[in-house]
Amino acid sequence: MAFLNDHHLKLKAGYLFPEISRRVKAFCDANPAAAQRLIRCGIGDVTEALPPACIAALHQAVDEMADRATFKGYGPEQGYEWLRAAIAQNDYRARGLDVADDEIFVSDGSKCDCGNILDIFGHQNRIAVTDPVYPVYVDTNVMAGHTGPADDAGAYAGLVYLAGNAANGFVPAPPSEGVDLIYLCSPNNPTGAVMTREQLTAWVNYALQNRAIILFDAAYEAYISDPALPHSIFEIPGARECAIEFRSFSKNGGFTGTRCAFTVVPKTLMAQTASGEPRPLHPLWLRRMTTKFNGVSYPVQRAAEALYSTEGKAQVRALIEHYLGNARVLVAGAQAAGRPVFGGVNAPYIWVQTPAGTTSWQAFDKILHEANVVITPGSGFGKAGEGWFRISSFNRRANAEEVARRLPELKW
Amino acid sequence: MAFLNDHHLKLKAGYLFPEISRRVKAFCDANPAAAQRLIRCGIGDVTEALPPACIAALHQAVDEMADRATFKGYGPEQGYEWLRAAIAQNDYRARGLDVADDEIFVSDGSKCDCGNILDIFGHQNRIAVTDPVYPVYVDTNVMAGHTGPADDAGAYAGLVYLAGNAANGFVPAPPSEGVDLIYLCSPNNPTGAVMTREQLTAWVNYALQNRAIILFDAAYEAYISDPALPHSIFEIPGARECAIEFRSFSKNGGFTGTRCAFTVVPKTLMAQTASGEPRPLHPLWLRRMTTKFNGVSYPVQRAAEALYSTEGKAQVRALIEHYLGNARVLVAGAQAAGRPVFGGVNAPYIWVQTPAGTTSWQAFDKILHEANVVITPGSGFGKAGEGWFRISSFNRRANAEEVARRLPELKW
Repeated sequence: MAFLNDHHLKLKAGYLFPEISRRVKAFCDANPAAAQRLIRCGIGDVTEALPPACIAALHQAVDEMADRATFKGYGPEQGYEWLRAAIAQNDYRARGLDVADDEIFVSDGSKCDCGNILDIFGHQNRIAVTDPVYPVYVDTNVMAGHTGPADDAGAYAGLVYLAGNAANGFVPAPPSEGVDLIYLCSPNNPTGAVMTREQLTAWVNYALQNRAIILFDAAYEAYISDPALPHSIFEIPGARECAIEFRSFSKNGGFTGTRCAFTVVPKTLMAQTASGEPRPLHPLWLRRMTTKFNGVSYPVQRAAEALYSTEGKAQVRALIEHYLGNARVLVAGAQAAGRPVFGGVNAPYIWVQTPAGTTSWQAFDKILHEANVVITPGSGFGKAGEGWFRISSFNRRANAEEVARRLPELKW
Repeated sequence: MAFLNDHHLKLKAGYLFPEISRRVKAFCDANPAAAQRLIRCGIGDVTEALPPACIAALHQAVDEMADRATFKGYGPEQGYEWLRAAIAQNDYRARGLDVADDEIFVSDGSKCDCGNILDIFGHQNRIAVTDPVYPVYVDTNVMAGHTGPADDAGAYAGLVYLAGNAANGFVPAPPSEGVDLIYLCSPNNPTGAVMTREQLTAWVNYALQNRAIILFDAAYEAYISDPALPHSIFEIPGARECAIEFRSFSKNGGFTGTRCAFTVVPKTLMAQTASGEPRPLHPLWLRRMTTKFNGVSYPVQRAAEALYSTEGKAQVRALIEHYLGNARVLVAGAQAAGRPVFGGVNAPYIWVQTPAGTTSWQAFDKILHEANVVITPGSGFGKAGEGWFRISSFNRRANAEEVARRLPELKW
């Protein structure tokens, strides 16, 4: 009989969001009146329309597909040259960063890229993640067989968890032990913490010294408004020798349902074979993408390109300002409720401490039942998230303001 | 230092099509006049515009994305319910086949699905492929570490190759030895051979007896015009216990640049754990897709849905008839050239034997240089493809007719 991948069976039953959906549905079914005033600040999904520049580009590209003279079939698996060039020029070279067009790999999502990147790495690597953590980094390593079983708190044997907490501002320092692959996410999902140049430099130096590779998830880069904070790991000297960067159009252009992202693999980045020979990773990722992927939808790539037009940039800026405005309102609301708060300044997520003795899920239930607001329990992101919850600022302004009014009314 | 995936280094240097591109470019650069009359029948990419029903659905969906009231963010990773229902109803239940909506997993391509499916299988499986073979089946197994190194002919140790030839009509029978995973493609890429009900039944019976799983690639199903031939493996009794089916909108709706496909994983399909316990595979694939994928672009899913409308079906029919008409012309041309021919009747590919003593690449070069036509050398699909070449019928009619005129003029 064919064998299945046993590692899958180590995965804890529920991804976080299905459990949230279940509790929200049960509450709404039992309380139809309260359901009417429910406000969802749980899942980090954008709410505003696509920028007009993208809409125009999509319509035009669709018309091209309607005429055999301009129809597009298979494109390059790694993305059209005009999109790779627009990305490398605008997001990197215009900021003085050395990234070539062919170091950009266009994909249908950062979640996919963060998972698929493991295809090019060996199974011998020691893997580090921060805690709390975006669950995809952990689950994809479990599925790939890089861990043992989970303990009762959901931590998997064999992974190195680096705990965030109020004392370190939810930015863990490099570990004392040596690890080979490190997932960093800045601005962070779920905590909203953003690494300073000094903190990121410490990580790059650690990676260079330990010949480790940093998988740097910058999906929320557009929310950085403090000019002192790095947008890309490639702003740090040496990063081209130790980092892969993931970027997405989901949270700047609002592409969560449109699907486009990209990954930067520098040609100077090396890893070793089992016998210890260093080899560049760029050809491996190119081969992976050309063999197991067939490119992003042509109209979608044109929509992504439009984000780099003058109008597109202004429209993205307006979207980001909208969500950051929500974040300011929500931070103020959580502070008015007397809760310690992180994030929400250079990130769309607000990370809020529960009152002493209240677990994340208890806070979730209380906020759902009494304020009729859906948040995300911090413990769903790992052991170190216990005692915290995440509020998403992806909403319309009136909803953010209403949530900010309701939170201080809760009696804990 | 971080370790790379050593198995990648076993891959033979070039995927077939880059080498073809290189030779075509060199020829065109050296012969600008001949380049003017070049006709490409190499890569299997559609040439005709998207059906009008899809264009209308795309424009409408793009307009929905322009308004926050109808905007779509994250959809279900496995596809919207309305698309899964349209697929299950039209492609399966309307044909009397028992497939539930939630057994359909919508994706961005069959190439991706054929590669990604290995994520849910163990590394202990013995893998069989037909030869000639769509290279993605082989290369993804190499990358996953399921093979040893390649020999001089490009065959990888550890894979079971089942040779097609003129005697078996390029439909190999099940092997005498036991294998666990079998890739079958019907209508076949590259040979254009289509399995009869009896041949496919023999395979299903083999799989049930050996408790093996068939990975059935039916991307070219729409080209079947003989009513006696099976369109789906689920037409064969017992297949729900031994098969996964891959389907695509690339070659029926012309979605090669638009990107949408689907995979059918029956809930009744089981594989065993390392300790021998049978478990259903459906939850593993669901978890794989929800963890490592984020759904297909919303407008693209609406375009796929439109293929199932009354107008959409008629427009797809017209596209298929166009390409099958080309295939008839090309088959006649190859026969007029005195060459033995397979395929091209219920498939868009024509599989042509080279004259005795002429290798596939020699034929490629001769046809390129003397007829100024690009074909695909059969040896690029495996050892058993040596001595054959593939002509793609994805073209406009005038080109197919011109190729059919030029082929008989060649002096071998």
